[in-house]
Amino acid sequence: MAVEELKHMVDAAEGREAVDILFTNAQIVDVYALRVVPGRVAVKDGVIVGVLFDPRDADVPDPAAAQVIDLGGRFLSPGFIDGHLHIESSNVRPSEYARMALARGTTCAIADSHEIANVCGLDGLSFMIEDARRSPLDIKFMMPSCVPALPDEQAGASITAADMQAFMAEHPGEIFGLGEMMNYPGVEAADAETLARIDAARATVSGLVDGHAPLVAGNDLNAYTASGVIADHECTNVDEALDKLSRGMYIMLREGTCSHDLEALAPLVVDDPRRARRCCFATDDRAPSDALAIGMIDNACRVAIASGIDELTAIAMGTLSTAECFRLDHGHAPACERRGTIAPGKRADLLVLDDLSFTRPPRAVYSAGELVARDGAFVGEVAPASARVEELEALLRGSVRLPELSAEVFDYPFVPGSAVIDVIPGNAITGAAYPDSAEGLRRIMLIERHGRGVAAQEAGADGDAPAGTGLVGKHIGRGWLRGFTIAGGAIASTIGHDSHNVCVVGDNPRDMYEAVRHVGQGGFVLVRDGSVVARLDLPLGGLMSDKPADEVAREHDEFIAAGCAAGIEPPLDPLMGMIFLPLPVIPTLRIRPEGVFDVRTMSYAV
Amino acid sequence: MAVEELKHMVDAAEGREAVDILFTNAQIVDVYALRVVPGRVAVKDGVIVGVLFDPRDADVPDPAAAQVIDLGGRFLSPGFIDGHLHIESSNVRPSEYARMALARGTTCAIADSHEIANVCGLDGLSFMIEDARRSPLDIKFMMPSCVPALPDEQAGASITAADMQAFMAEHPGEIFGLGEMMNYPGVEAADAETLARIDAARATVSGLVDGHAPLVAGNDLNAYTASGVIADHECTNVDEALDKLSRGMYIMLREGTCSHDLEALAPLVVDDPRRARRCCFATDDRAPSDALAIGMIDNACRVAIASGIDELTAIAMGTLSTAECFRLDHGHAPACERRGTIAPGKRADLLVLDDLSFTRPPRAVYSAGELVARDGAFVGEVAPASARVEELEALLRGSVRLPELSAEVFDYPFVPGSAVIDVIPGNAITGAAYPDSAEGLRRIMLIERHGRGVAAQEAGADGDAPAGTGLVGKHIGRGWLRGFTIAGGAIASTIGHDSHNVCVVGDNPRDMYEAVRHVGQGGFVLVRDGSVVARLDLPLGGLMSDKPADEVAREHDEFIAAGCAAGIEPPLDPLMGMIFLPLPVIPTLRIRPEGVFDVRTMSYAV
Repeated sequence: MAVEELKHMVDAAEGREAVDILFTNAQIVDVYALRVVPGRVAVKDGVIVGVLFDPRDADVPDPAAAQVIDLGGRFLSPGFIDGHLHIESSNVRPSEYARMALARGTTCAIADSHEIANVCGLDGLSFMIEDARRSPLDIKFMMPSCVPALPDEQAGASITAADMQAFMAEHPGEIFGLGEMMNYPGVEAADAETLARIDAARATVSGLVDGHAPLVAGNDLNAYTASGVIADHECTNVDEALDKLSRGMYIMLREGTCSHDLEALAPLVVDDPRRARRCCFATDDRAPSDALAIGMIDNACRVAIASGIDELTAIAMGTLSTAECFRLDHGHAPACERRGTIAPGKRADLLVLDDLSFTRPPRAVYSAGELVARDGAFVGEVAPASARVEELEALLRGSVRLPELSAEVFDYPFVPGSAVIDVIPGNAITGAAYPDSAEGLRRIMLIERHGRGVAAQEAGADGDAPAGTGLVGKHIGRGWLRGFTIAGGAIASTIGHDSHNVCVVGDNPRDMYEAVRHVGQGGFVLVRDGSVVARLDLPLGGLMSDKPADEVAREHDEFIAAGCAAGIEPPLDPLMGMIFLPLPVIPTLRIRPEGVFDVRTMSYAV
Repeated sequence: MAVEELKHMVDAAEGREAVDILFTNAQIVDVYALRVVPGRVAVKDGVIVGVLFDPRDADVPDPAAAQVIDLGGRFLSPGFIDGHLHIESSNVRPSEYARMALARGTTCAIADSHEIANVCGLDGLSFMIEDARRSPLDIKFMMPSCVPALPDEQAGASITAADMQAFMAEHPGEIFGLGEMMNYPGVEAADAETLARIDAARATVSGLVDGHAPLVAGNDLNAYTASGVIADHECTNVDEALDKLSRGMYIMLREGTCSHDLEALAPLVVDDPRRARRCCFATDDRAPSDALAIGMIDNACRVAIASGIDELTAIAMGTLSTAECFRLDHGHAPACERRGTIAPGKRADLLVLDDLSFTRPPRAVYSAGELVARDGAFVGEVAPASARVEELEALLRGSVRLPELSAEVFDYPFVPGSAVIDVIPGNAITGAAYPDSAEGLRRIMLIERHGRGVAAQEAGADGDAPAGTGLVGKHIGRGWLRGFTIAGGAIASTIGHDSHNVCVVGDNPRDMYEAVRHVGQGGFVLVRDGSVVARLDLPLGGLMSDKPADEVAREHDEFIAAGCAAGIEPPLDPLMGMIFLPLPVIPTLRIRPEGVFDVRTMSYAV
């Protein structure tokens, strides 16, 4: 911190300079001592410069303040830090995500943008960073560590350790750490490129490596943690969480849209609240409708409290523990980079709360001393898109490069006894079935959309056959699905983890053909009887809308309603039920551009 | 961490490479989850590479190991980290301090060497750093922040922000952080040089600034903490500790030789053990006899447990909390620099304990995987002094440069009603008395010993008067003392905080003269009837012995016994009772080279 900045802070703390805001009659949520204390808080230049507790400091006079805010006995809490999330999963751009998150009290987000990076590479990451700058939410961007998810995935980009180093050298200070190291087999095998990526984290701002190690245990977990990975958000039961906690990992109790692990993990903290020092919250993936209606980390606090964690411990987990995990609490960074608590010399990220139940949005949210949300509505400023944002956005808008396709490609026979993806509604894991007939089955196809199919066609792959025929088994995978109950229609999606090729599911070739034909520059399309009956446009990389979150949430709801009408009823979801079908790192069968893939044997099914 | 190092760790964790040590049948002290779990711990290249818990990991086979150590159900704990201490206060050199500290389970020490820095400046600091390298104790050296203690102190050196910057540029990686910022008035006043020193901390390894702020509260504490100071070891009551804890400071519960604050502060943690995350232990100043007989941080744990803090919380405070305070727990540093817990990828600083009572030394102590102590005895290796150590040591051995003195200088009259230093036995604070007669009083003098008096004499300060006469009131301060019960003798000392001039106290001028005459190159001298009856030689800067700690402890004991015989009985101490009398920053009256000083008015008494 520069001496001049230090001097202003000290002078303000001592009352020699007027402060910007003085909060009075606050019930200060003190996550260090785990208590609520009446008092006053002074803010200057976006930083807390004074905290005065009653009755201990009652004699200290009020400083001169440009603005005095009488909180009338309301609670003043530190802003929340979301320990791990993918903005793209909310289907909105970063500047829009920020509005939504700030309205629910998230004032700092540790974001891994590996979805857009799989589509648009480091340009995609740059778009996220530049667009995020427009808003008052402090988003710390991690470098995606596993793009593509598997070496032979037909993704839109790959990011090697050398690419990371080059990017960070060109963009100093922009990358906070290395994002979730999902390639735990690579770490365990001491794969040179994987370890080089971990080593590359040293060039990030924090030097930290985030983790992702579902069910990893024993020596594999020893190897994974020995490599320096600091956290895990994939625990689903207490024994697994204890395994990792006791080996030095911060445990992120995840409460997202697809994954609700918090209730099951709460006993970890309920049994011994001292463990909260190493436990945080993360949303990971959060649909905008959930975010708007139920919340983000505030919702995690609510669920934690309902699961038996006391209020102050829950708040400390969502603030100080996450700050400590990412070394944002104390240190030599400028004061505006220190956070997670209400204390002098920390960033003034503050929430005004009527109570500590988190059943409704904060009464007010301050980011670095600026009022940015009130009663669940964003009231801050989002700067206009810069020329750089517009330039990068233009790249994202051209991300869907599908080959030419004819209707014939969608019409293929079922081979009795062949491997069929068995959907488990509401669960990302699938089963494997080998039925004798196609009865009750649906078709599923995955069509490469990053230009490989286009190039193959230009090289004459189709010959004289109908368009797309020559790509089957290479860039167009075809298979069958059980348990996906769509009737008289088809859904196509440009979201398909992690390579985000076009996945289409339907009960007839014609609607599937039409759905893919109408996918345009990205999104979800539901076609029935040859006509589009619902759509969610996601023109930014095929992943994000350019609309406000509430419109996207409404489109989500309408799509789900249309899906219901087409036979897709809860717990099966016409959006979430689609996006994991191509993910080749989760058991059991998946669809890939080469065909149906068996994750157990890491080979294509017949 | 280099990729090659990562690969070895991972390969060892996975059992593809043999480990150096496998501890079996351990009761692992898990300070993350606050539990004791039976299991195994594997160490390779000084780093923990595997932790296996029973029964969870019972199926995992033992790795190949060069050495298998069956702990037979004994406890295995992380090594202790002493959060704040002055090696010089133990009157031994760093390589000797290391033997003593390791024997009691301290495996990392955050050392501020401002005593020797006040005498020999940055060369003194270099000596400490170089001598410490000889031993297996990992000592992190802080840059002394306040040398001299006051701008006009007649110390042997001064260290400005510019000096710090230059030293750190020349000695990259050697300075861990900025040492205790005792000049809190300077911080509160936003003094430019003081803030520049805080700013200089950015060039240290950790970037952190340690604190020292006795009884600072309200806006002064807000200013002090806003400046980024991370910790305080000066709390003496729970309210003060809460003030600081809640403003973001780590609280070091001090249990040293002069200061025993732990019992009074224990309720801070007993009332809410979750606060232990921000509470550590420190010895600050530890006499070698105490260190050898009672211990260091192990003793702090014992006192903590006796004060109601549970065993696991106490151990976590002495290990993980201190590591987190100094950001040594997790991060991008090499694995051998991560510590404070038993987890993969952390330095193998380990204690074997029979029980968790800390009533006797650890059964065994490992530093970075090397056995260094057994049953309270150091069994590790101390390397021979390097040429650089010897060169610096030679500088330290010439630190006492006293002017010529005649017996007449020690013979001065008492002026009735003048200010007399009122000793409070066992307390560093003094009172002020204004007696009408010299009855029951003793003489006290402070004689500058860093060469200023010598230079003044060379310039003819004494004229034709007896040697030293011309220095009185300039480089020789004279006064009177009440409550210091020495009878028929005098004590001289080259330790006198913080400038370490020669302090002499006695009941007759002749013995005082003889005591100073015999102080030689440093130490404590007790003279009775003109003869030296006890001495503690401290030839290294006048602060440290060149002998083993047990000899120094024996000399301590003998000196105290001789003091008793001369009328100085507990709680008055002939060593500790001397060393704070010159310290001009603690109330009320002090002796300085200019005369008796009133700390209340910061002016000389008449």
